[in-house]
Amino acid sequence: MLTETTFASTVFPVETLQLDGRLESFVRGGRRLFPLLPRALQGIATIGVVGWGSQGPAQAQNLRESLTGTPIRVVVGLREGSSSAAEARAAGFSESDGTLGGMFDVIAKADLILLLISDAAQAELYPRIFNALRPGVTLGLSHGFLLGHLRNQGEDFPPHVNVIGVCPKGMGPSVRRLYEQGRQIDGAGINTSFAVERDLDGRATDIALAWSVGLGAPYTFKTTLRSEYLSDIFGERAILLGAVHGIVESLYRRYIGDGFSEEEAFVHACESITGPISHTISRQGLLGVYERLSAPERADFGRAYSAAYATARPLMVEIYDEVASGNELRSVVLAGKRLHDYPIPKIDGSRMWKVGASVRAKRGRLSPEVHAFTAGVFLGAMMAQVDVLIDRGHPYSEIANESVIEAVDSLLPYMHARGVAYMVDNCSTTARLGTRKWGPRFDAQLTQIAYPDADQRGRTDDALIAAFASHPIHNVLKTLSAMRPAVDIAVE
Amino acid sequence: MLTETTFASTVFPVETLQLDGRLESFVRGGRRLFPLLPRALQGIATIGVVGWGSQGPAQAQNLRESLTGTPIRVVVGLREGSSSAAEARAAGFSESDGTLGGMFDVIAKADLILLLISDAAQAELYPRIFNALRPGVTLGLSHGFLLGHLRNQGEDFPPHVNVIGVCPKGMGPSVRRLYEQGRQIDGAGINTSFAVERDLDGRATDIALAWSVGLGAPYTFKTTLRSEYLSDIFGERAILLGAVHGIVESLYRRYIGDGFSEEEAFVHACESITGPISHTISRQGLLGVYERLSAPERADFGRAYSAAYATARPLMVEIYDEVASGNELRSVVLAGKRLHDYPIPKIDGSRMWKVGASVRAKRGRLSPEVHAFTAGVFLGAMMAQVDVLIDRGHPYSEIANESVIEAVDSLLPYMHARGVAYMVDNCSTTARLGTRKWGPRFDAQLTQIAYPDADQRGRTDDALIAAFASHPIHNVLKTLSAMRPAVDIAVE
Repeated sequence: MLTETTFASTVFPVETLQLDGRLESFVRGGRRLFPLLPRALQGIATIGVVGWGSQGPAQAQNLRESLTGTPIRVVVGLREGSSSAAEARAAGFSESDGTLGGMFDVIAKADLILLLISDAAQAELYPRIFNALRPGVTLGLSHGFLLGHLRNQGEDFPPHVNVIGVCPKGMGPSVRRLYEQGRQIDGAGINTSFAVERDLDGRATDIALAWSVGLGAPYTFKTTLRSEYLSDIFGERAILLGAVHGIVESLYRRYIGDGFSEEEAFVHACESITGPISHTISRQGLLGVYERLSAPERADFGRAYSAAYATARPLMVEIYDEVASGNELRSVVLAGKRLHDYPIPKIDGSRMWKVGASVRAKRGRLSPEVHAFTAGVFLGAMMAQVDVLIDRGHPYSEIANESVIEAVDSLLPYMHARGVAYMVDNCSTTARLGTRKWGPRFDAQLTQIAYPDADQRGRTDDALIAAFASHPIHNVLKTLSAMRPAVDIAVE
Repeated sequence: MLTETTFASTVFPVETLQLDGRLESFVRGGRRLFPLLPRALQGIATIGVVGWGSQGPAQAQNLRESLTGTPIRVVVGLREGSSSAAEARAAGFSESDGTLGGMFDVIAKADLILLLISDAAQAELYPRIFNALRPGVTLGLSHGFLLGHLRNQGEDFPPHVNVIGVCPKGMGPSVRRLYEQGRQIDGAGINTSFAVERDLDGRATDIALAWSVGLGAPYTFKTTLRSEYLSDIFGERAILLGAVHGIVESLYRRYIGDGFSEEEAFVHACESITGPISHTISRQGLLGVYERLSAPERADFGRAYSAAYATARPLMVEIYDEVASGNELRSVVLAGKRLHDYPIPKIDGSRMWKVGASVRAKRGRLSPEVHAFTAGVFLGAMMAQVDVLIDRGHPYSEIANESVIEAVDSLLPYMHARGVAYMVDNCSTTARLGTRKWGPRFDAQLTQIAYPDADQRGRTDDALIAAFASHPIHNVLKTLSAMRPAVDIAVE
């Protein structure tokens, strides 16, 4: 295992459940726990939120609100001349009352520093940031990128600070919106995982849990920074973004080749996944998709699942190896240096995505259904990812989140509303680079290997389908689905 | 510059030419120089050729024949139980006369060791190989892979041996066949570049030149092992294999979408490149392709060239960065460890390559012409590669070879005879991994960015076309084309 998944807290009530026989502890969040925050954060007078990108605005505002009435101050730190200063002021942070300041001033003065600047900025600035940290403070990350980058340099975090992570399982705007909804609806919020990378005095777990509860997380599971960044960087390159991109592009061409109109092909290839397949997985689990198919549809599903699983799995092992070896993060850092000369061009000008926009405009008239072959390809790839992460020893809560829950409860609904290409063109730079790198690989492997295989053999690999039917992930998802946020992530 | 391109020899006559104002020295080979070999190889009693893959059989047999009548012996070294032993015996090497032996025995006894085993075997065995080398011997490589791999490990060649490279610009079977034809036809052979990585006593250059002349190289230019492996690993991922793969796949789909039949689309997308475009470049240079187009065809060429150059160049910069950073070789080594569990599947089962086989079977009835849009895409990508290598300081002889000459005089004719997919499925493991990795990236960039750009803007970037028309590569190619081997590489 990459991580010990049980833990204890002196402040928060900890529960434990079994996921396929493995114990995982968690904290059930909620506003009733806010009075416990000052005790968990004892000794912390100032929380510095550094950066105002996706997570920064959400975390700064949520924590400020959760800590109202306590002496603990939330202060935002920005780079000199940051264009986000106006937004931070509009959100009520200001230089005049000392809750808005320069990034390095805030880092030097705060007791808990949440470093929420972009991966590229972390890679560039970490030596100055580490220099600015006072002994005994706590450095908080919402993502393991910096750990991976330090390892690639043969370096480490400074020895005199605590290092923890709290990683929300959704984008910053969702972290904020669901927190706001949580004022009325108990249980609204974004789940997180937390990690303790260095614990100087035994208090790091409680600090991390307080941070997570203060963000409004309904459930907080345990991981490590390494496990988190491996599964996160891997997952976005695989089923969350890269694979789904390659799947829909390859299926669209396949259905065009079968004689469908462009709009019909788009509905079968893309709308079916982002709409009913995603929705069915979210409500009835992965098996729910299979169970609603007719017998002939199950045959189609079976040969698609078999070929896609067999083709996606080696590619996913390759992605995992590239991430674990440090290659992928090195590539991201190299790419960051090229972006000025060669910005990443958008892909939404291609024919398929123009068709997609027109299909979305006709919603209601063209109604997508679960297309059996499409479902087989998508679930084959998804299950390949689940099995790769199990092989590599990730905790089940993380596997389920990075392979299934984040897809069907967060990203696919977003893609359904805006288009896959929009998502690919507008996610974080690290994710965008990964999607552009690996999406075409999935497309090529499916087109050149999997579909010819499905068509020529024309039959199901019964052992693969049996393994799918009896896979422990189904019970894990059932258990975790009871822990879904009470409110769905909204997409405007 | 990555390398000093001039050199002197105490044995061989050295000539110098100007390529776009830069001096490059070379040795003009030929059988008349064979009497000089013993002097250049003074002190070398045994040449050990280690490995019997592509280069091994060619180099062992050519050197043995070139050194006939001298006391210098050529001995082949193979791994225990190698399945190639029978082939080596059939070529006249035998245990009984001491010209065939165990790999490590040969390495321990030879004075010049030509290490021609696969990249994966080099990565696995180099510590044992280095241990077996006696002080003062010369280690010869035909490819810079091992240098790159050592750098990635923070290691170096052992300090007590000479290290040289002689890198033929063609596959082993061609090195052998053209040498055989050279018995009758002066000037038949495969050109090489040589490198001196470590020179203990000032004789390494002459040893390398003797090796090259003994192989039958008509012309031998100078490079460094680093410059060689960067351009070689980069080139095969770009225009030589990866890019051409992505280009023909994307154009085929484009022409299908335009309403052409599958066979017509294949002829325009693929046959046009591997046949007449390649042949025209080889005989009349890059400008020759443009000059034979009509005015409306030139407009098509121009918008295709403009969009393809703009799209391919950033991707080629990315590939170069990945190779130069060591990432690409690390990926190859990681992939080598997965091959047992996940062998690389072939791509020739896809619809397009089945159509290709049927088109090749009808040769004569379907005759390909220079398709203007196809030519624009292919030359746009090729020129992007030329410019990336110029920017990075490679010598012009190397740039021309890795970007143009090897493509049009070696690989494309082979692809024309057997199919691009056959080439992709049957090249070296390192090349195959690279083609499978980067080919789909070119495909995606062209499909998603370049073609929509060409269609929507619909016009030529005049500055790019002017830069193409006045590019120094044309004169370089004209100079080097006088140095083409006298006999074309045959493809059966």
